[in-house]
Amino acid sequence: MTAALLTDKYELTMLSAALRDGTAARRTTFEVFARRLPEGRRYGVVAGTGRFLEALTEFVFDDGALDSLSSFLDAATLDYLRGFRFSGDIDGYAEGELYFPGSPVLSVTGTFAECVVLETLALSIFNHDTAIASAAARMVSASAGRPLIEMGSRRTHEQAAVASARAAYIAGFAGTSNLEACRRYGVPALGTSAHAFTMLHTGADGPDEKAAFRAQVDALGVGTTLLVDTYDVIVGAANAIAVAGTGLGAVRIDSGDLGVLARQVRAQLDELGATGTQIVVSGDLDEYSIAALRADPVDTYGVGTSVVTGSGAPTASMVYKLVEVDGLPVQKRSSHKESHGGRKAATRLSRPTGTITEEVIHPVGEPVESAEPARLLTVPLVRGGRLLATPDLTAARERVVAGLHSLPWEGLALSRGEPAIPTRQVTARRR
Amino acid sequence: MTAALLTDKYELTMLSAALRDGTAARRTTFEVFARRLPEGRRYGVVAGTGRFLEALTEFVFDDGALDSLSSFLDAATLDYLRGFRFSGDIDGYAEGELYFPGSPVLSVTGTFAECVVLETLALSIFNHDTAIASAAARMVSASAGRPLIEMGSRRTHEQAAVASARAAYIAGFAGTSNLEACRRYGVPALGTSAHAFTMLHTGADGPDEKAAFRAQVDALGVGTTLLVDTYDVIVGAANAIAVAGTGLGAVRIDSGDLGVLARQVRAQLDELGATGTQIVVSGDLDEYSIAALRADPVDTYGVGTSVVTGSGAPTASMVYKLVEVDGLPVQKRSSHKESHGGRKAATRLSRPTGTITEEVIHPVGEPVESAEPARLLTVPLVRGGRLLATPDLTAARERVVAGLHSLPWEGLALSRGEPAIPTRQVTARRR
Repeated sequence: MTAALLTDKYELTMLSAALRDGTAARRTTFEVFARRLPEGRRYGVVAGTGRFLEALTEFVFDDGALDSLSSFLDAATLDYLRGFRFSGDIDGYAEGELYFPGSPVLSVTGTFAECVVLETLALSIFNHDTAIASAAARMVSASAGRPLIEMGSRRTHEQAAVASARAAYIAGFAGTSNLEACRRYGVPALGTSAHAFTMLHTGADGPDEKAAFRAQVDALGVGTTLLVDTYDVIVGAANAIAVAGTGLGAVRIDSGDLGVLARQVRAQLDELGATGTQIVVSGDLDEYSIAALRADPVDTYGVGTSVVTGSGAPTASMVYKLVEVDGLPVQKRSSHKESHGGRKAATRLSRPTGTITEEVIHPVGEPVESAEPARLLTVPLVRGGRLLATPDLTAARERVVAGLHSLPWEGLALSRGEPAIPTRQVTARRR
Repeated sequence: MTAALLTDKYELTMLSAALRDGTAARRTTFEVFARRLPEGRRYGVVAGTGRFLEALTEFVFDDGALDSLSSFLDAATLDYLRGFRFSGDIDGYAEGELYFPGSPVLSVTGTFAECVVLETLALSIFNHDTAIASAAARMVSASAGRPLIEMGSRRTHEQAAVASARAAYIAGFAGTSNLEACRRYGVPALGTSAHAFTMLHTGADGPDEKAAFRAQVDALGVGTTLLVDTYDVIVGAANAIAVAGTGLGAVRIDSGDLGVLARQVRAQLDELGATGTQIVVSGDLDEYSIAALRADPVDTYGVGTSVVTGSGAPTASMVYKLVEVDGLPVQKRSSHKESHGGRKAATRLSRPTGTITEEVIHPVGEPVESAEPARLLTVPLVRGGRLLATPDLTAARERVVAGLHSLPWEGLALSRGEPAIPTRQVTARRR
């Protein structure tokens, strides 16, 4: 399937006008950045880079696409699109890096024609995936090392669900319920069972929870996770051990006061000798309720709605702005939407301990002079239209771990606050 | 592409267990409904029905899908899935109907096996599309008859963008910026231009806004919409008319105090003789800011982030619950998650004037007795696996118009409140 129509109409009408007056061939750089973090957030996590680079290879206009455009585009524009392949350069933050207001997470350089048509696709992917990864990272840090399972597919668009699973995994989730994310990206697929399965085992004599548990254990083995809250949690947990024995993998609690129930069920399981049986909790969890369960005997969190909707910030508000034309910086001047012209890179400064102190955004090729440890964040991703590396989820996960570790302590606070480190814009030296 | 892996793993492990113990063949009904509307909302708009019915025809397990499942499913389950085709019955609200807490918007009847595997796909589609349509309908009623353009593709997942354009169109938007929504669903594609196009026209002497406008008018004609706020709105509007003449289609203002600027630009355009040139405004609009602009000379609203993110409610919180097994109602009993057992339909009561008064949810085949006008909302959608009708966006749009018209006046208020009409659950007569 072509990705080329996942695009706003005006990109192609602008292209048409630019082809006609000759400006389409001008050498441009567009930059993807967020003017601010979602309200009260202290950091964000870049995600979508790998998906965008993959989509770039599918950004071709096939006959069907061209047909659908022929009603409003002239022949010259259709001809241009027929042979379209992005042939420019792309630089940016590696997937999984933290970002802050103004961070140039992606920089696309090429002719105006080949850069302008990528605007919507780039923003759709970065705004979605970054929103999910940024929320997910807060949940990961709130869980203090306990594993999290992403199970929010049902609360978001069916394809956004696949991307959400991937983004949450980058941020440190252990896996997902989503099977397509497993197939497409290798995210570990995990699962338990639903209340419907327990309720299915209802006969003329009423509900038979044990029959449901027996069927699940027969099919999946005692290592499975039994859902114990369909009728009564304590009876359910007793039934679970009665059926599966003390070797049962886990029980899941999906409703009620999860902390209270986890403590009750833990005591009950221990008393029954099922000391190794774990407790999975789920049910409208977000970073705050995850943190609130830290003192309770919870082994794994299942998180749905809040992670796939970005926990209050469903989009990262990134923009795609023209910053350079034929080597000259450009910027718009309308109110409240300041952009900084010129092609830029970013360097992050830190203390010798590794704690980060500042994000410096500076012209490409003018490295930051600093006595402190400094790391250039901007890396080459595409040269002459060719991807320089295959997207690597494992490396992205490691970057998130390192990034969270590098934050000053207040940067990990869940409460609303300022960005964890300041951003400094360095303007170009006079040339 | 198969839709079959847009599914949670547990559906297939439950299937496996149910095939093994024979319960997979039990006749079941699952119901899609929302326990509540998003906080403070007075009504919701059902959307996704057409997309779900289309996805149902793609819900087949091809070899690639089966391969990816073979690591955790037994041979009998894989065999079952190899031949899978939903062969049951589906009833529900027609797309575009209003809904309220508890409304059974979809009812899926068949064997447990064929119903359970549809859970995630059904919920993903309904939760997403309904959230967007419900937010969009509030914007439509706030706009008091002025057209709205959906232009939020860049602020949501690239495929969610296509579905969002469709849902907003159902709710009454005039069109979308999204080209794939135009191709796939026939939603009218609309567009203006971006600041980048104006800024592209920068030379050694600095910005040349008129050159940009000239290029656009040359390519698209004077009926086009020129974006006038890249540098200075008043200068921009003057440049627009200087280039295009007084026959210019429209100008767009994308920043600043939109009401103030619209009044200034309207006066300026009228003074220049461009009395027919319209004003399009955009820039972080939502239902409240749209309503606030009612007194200002705005002709068209461009809406992005708020519509594609559901304006604070990005998911409709619908659930897919087992309500009947082999003719017997079932329900779970855990705290705070009351479900009502039995296969249900819904009837909406109204005054003779057409203003609706109550949503009655009742057992299928037990019609509501009412002296007031009553309309059965539940219609057959699928029989024996066969779609009864092709999804029809025009009909869905007409249903939204009629639905909004039928609300009591307080139901259209943008402020937070209770659902516009109460929902009443009627339990089955003793049989």
